Amino acid sequence: MNQTTEPDTRAYTAQEQANIDHIRTMIRELLDALDPDAVDRFIVPDYIQHNQMVGQGTEPLKQFLREAKVHSPEPCHDIKRIFADGNHVIAHYHLRRWPGDTGYAIMDIFRLENTMVVEHWDVMMEVPTESPNPIGPF
Amino acid sequence: MNQTTEPDTRAYTAQEQANIDHIRTMIRELLDALDPDAVDRFIVPDYIQHNQMVGQGTEPLKQFLREAKVHSPEPCHDIKRIFADGNHVIAHYHLRRWPGDTGYAIMDIFRLENTMVVEHWDVMMEVPTESPNPIGPF
Repeated sequence: MNQTTEPDTRAYTAQEQANIDHIRTMIRELLDALDPDAVDRFIVPDYIQHNQMVGQGTEPLKQFLREAKVHSPEPCHDIKRIFADGNHVIAHYHLRRWPGDTGYAIMDIFRLENTMVVEHWDVMMEVPTESPNPIGPF
Repeated sequence: MNQTTEPDTRAYTAQEQANIDHIRTMIRELLDALDPDAVDRFIVPDYIQHNQMVGQGTEPLKQFLREAKVHSPEPCHDIKRIFADGNHVIAHYHLRRWPGDTGYAIMDIFRLENTMVVEHWDVMMEVPTESPNPIGPF
């Protein structure tokens, strides 16, 4: 059961809408596709990365994508909700690494300049298989 | 080192600003204080809770706060950035349960109606003590 309602419609600025569109496309073409060649279309080379599993800049990210492609070549990043506030976009999604994967709940915050990602923070946790809560995490 | 920049200033609607103020106050008076008596000032009784550790409505939350007060009576929820988009507020903060605690990185999404929380999602992870990344998670 998921009783989630859609966000109120708020008039985004043209830049906010462009930022949301950029992140939606990036999640599909870079993260779902695990495509290192897509990175430079979405992220500046010297972006500030706060994820603690990779280093600074786009090269460690490209290497991460190559390695992920080996053990889970067809992941799904299922966006549950996405928000914009000025030059930031926030996405909440369910990552399943393969069909049937319980997967991870992830929230990302992206800061953009000129419709390119310049900074990134994230928090991720495994979706629990048992819970006292009758409704799900999304 | 934390190279984080502040979000661009965007003109919030009066309701968005009220929502942000509501969440900031709630984090201080409810979460930092672990005060079950504060819950009804911030959250409607039948709110939809997606956190998988507690059940629906405010009673399980009040019980959670009472139990947390026993083993970590003075936590700090250090807000690193907070956003508004229509009727949603997104907060990214560092939870330290006690002084010196490495703690957790947490992102919360709140949906509000009439400046009260009606739905909540979150993702939390332990802050790692070792990382290949020279900058921190915030």
